[in-house]
Amino acid sequence: MVRPIARRGPGDVLLMSEPVRIAIDAMGGDFGPQVVVPAAALALAKRPLVRFLLCGDEAKINPELDRLPALKAAVTVIHTEVAVKMTDKPSVALRAGRRNSSMWLALDAVRRGAADVAVSAGNTGALMAMAKICLHMMPQVERPAIAARWPSQRGESIVLDLGASIGADAHHLVSMAIMGAAMARIVLDIPRPTVGLLNVGVEEVKGLEEVRAAGRLLRELETPSLHYFGFVEGDDIGKGTVDVVVTEGFTGNIALKAAEGTARQIGQYLREAMSRDWRSKLGYLLARPAFEALREKMDPRRSNGGLFLGLEGLVIKSHGGTDARGFAEALDVGFTSAQSGLIDKIREELACMVDPTSAAASPQVAQS
Amino acid sequence: MVRPIARRGPGDVLLMSEPVRIAIDAMGGDFGPQVVVPAAALALAKRPLVRFLLCGDEAKINPELDRLPALKAAVTVIHTEVAVKMTDKPSVALRAGRRNSSMWLALDAVRRGAADVAVSAGNTGALMAMAKICLHMMPQVERPAIAARWPSQRGESIVLDLGASIGADAHHLVSMAIMGAAMARIVLDIPRPTVGLLNVGVEEVKGLEEVRAAGRLLRELETPSLHYFGFVEGDDIGKGTVDVVVTEGFTGNIALKAAEGTARQIGQYLREAMSRDWRSKLGYLLARPAFEALREKMDPRRSNGGLFLGLEGLVIKSHGGTDARGFAEALDVGFTSAQSGLIDKIREELACMVDPTSAAASPQVAQS
Repeated sequence: MVRPIARRGPGDVLLMSEPVRIAIDAMGGDFGPQVVVPAAALALAKRPLVRFLLCGDEAKINPELDRLPALKAAVTVIHTEVAVKMTDKPSVALRAGRRNSSMWLALDAVRRGAADVAVSAGNTGALMAMAKICLHMMPQVERPAIAARWPSQRGESIVLDLGASIGADAHHLVSMAIMGAAMARIVLDIPRPTVGLLNVGVEEVKGLEEVRAAGRLLRELETPSLHYFGFVEGDDIGKGTVDVVVTEGFTGNIALKAAEGTARQIGQYLREAMSRDWRSKLGYLLARPAFEALREKMDPRRSNGGLFLGLEGLVIKSHGGTDARGFAEALDVGFTSAQSGLIDKIREELACMVDPTSAAASPQVAQS
Repeated sequence: MVRPIARRGPGDVLLMSEPVRIAIDAMGGDFGPQVVVPAAALALAKRPLVRFLLCGDEAKINPELDRLPALKAAVTVIHTEVAVKMTDKPSVALRAGRRNSSMWLALDAVRRGAADVAVSAGNTGALMAMAKICLHMMPQVERPAIAARWPSQRGESIVLDLGASIGADAHHLVSMAIMGAAMARIVLDIPRPTVGLLNVGVEEVKGLEEVRAAGRLLRELETPSLHYFGFVEGDDIGKGTVDVVVTEGFTGNIALKAAEGTARQIGQYLREAMSRDWRSKLGYLLARPAFEALREKMDPRRSNGGLFLGLEGLVIKSHGGTDARGFAEALDVGFTSAQSGLIDKIREELACMVDPTSAAASPQVAQS
């Protein structure tokens, strides 16, 4: 069943000269308005066409805005004193914050057509639960996915699902491939992205039946919008073997965090090595610009901003602990995706998909 | 049903003065005897009590042995011209190499009590399939697991399953926790290892029901042999939050390879950064000993050697592409595990476990 939502108008794609309206959950994340408001100023400097709806507590937002007069003209504040806590369970957040929290108001601005995209650094589970209720799922998609950019040796790839749903049947994997490819076209500017299904390489076990079935469906799916590459393994993500890596949320979440953990671990090894004696310290000083370029390249803020895909509206999740520069990246992903009409493109492409009722059995339901 | 296999004798634990007999698949891996034979010489230099059964083609083994007279006295060659290829499917390997391949002969030496451990750098799937047939599974274990050391910020942890089986029910996860803890005691020398179950941290989805059920069972399992810590996330592996990380094989394999891919990616970034201009190059030269210490710390050869757990005999899998130093590490893991009677310890501890028939439903069967 298609649930229509209020939209900007027919076609839903913004003209390049129209402003993009971003609704921000100003109270989300570890720092709230202190990070969110300066981030909006950074985003405005880069994209003069952006306008903001800041949802949250005026008493905390206005002092930040007063310091940034250029931003003030591009902002409307939607006041509320209710905020979802980072530690709230989704059920608690829904009970306390449905209809009146800063998070809900940002999503609701998208639902009623007052904004083109909602961005929050708040609690992921609460944001997903509220987004599903407020914006609804697309009719062809059973469950949402979180997709984000992943730096690779070749540049950047899109990886999904990073933890929205546990388990995925073949149909869900195929819809993730289509949604991820649409995101790669718009966010990475790749006309026909290559798509791989994450699988294991041990000879004896050629992967889950769902993954193999999805591989067969994708091979049959002749579409100009993506090129199905085949199975890829865990190390292919960092290599950049494909533009879009598709897996279910349990594995995707663990792969992402294992990679983040490894990066931090090597960073610590490197710091220890460079401070062990005077030769190393001097070497570090000489090579400092190179180390700074390396740090810049590995900076997780650069790929901040995960898209919630499968919803009838655009929602971006920022890391909770990021700073203004990181949150500005998430705003930029929102700007680009909204301006290019990502949701409409996904809707069109999913409509061409095979009938979902013909797909394999349902996966295990996520536990709450 | 307990299937008895020929063993060294009652108790099965070697006295510290008895030699450890290692059966080696001399034809396994990308390089065969060229790597395996010099590796045996390295292992003998470190552990004078080791003795080797080299299974493979005399015509290829003997020229290597002739260069290493000290090793020759510690070696018996079991000749065969049949070798499993790195690309053979397990079914093909079994058809062509059961009873007569170098891989099978190494495993069979363990079965008939002529060796204490088998080590192979050959095809993982074939080795696992042959090991299950030749050595049999322990009666309390439904499916095998691959366990290996994983370097962390605190030292080293044990992670399993790295890809032997896809999916795991609560009972299998618990038996992996027990087997992994026994390995940590012996290989990492930690008297009461902490054990964590790998899970996702997203609020909405608190993980698979199997993982939650295994958590409940482990919490009830009061045993002096391990301390159950609780759930851990992907980045806890690199942090070293626990000594033993337990997950099913699909996720474990992908986490391992994602981490390996990230390490390679950062290594490439670092090389590029250090060669970008004369200042960086000079800095690199000055800090070279520090970079060499870093390389040593990140050297994957140091943690080479995965144990196949759940079998009635000790089997070690080396990376196929490793060199003599890396293969010698796998031999050393074999030596330590055999000398400490790892299999007997695992057998005893599994015997104290809860009745397997009371556990949750069976997991999905691995696809071949």
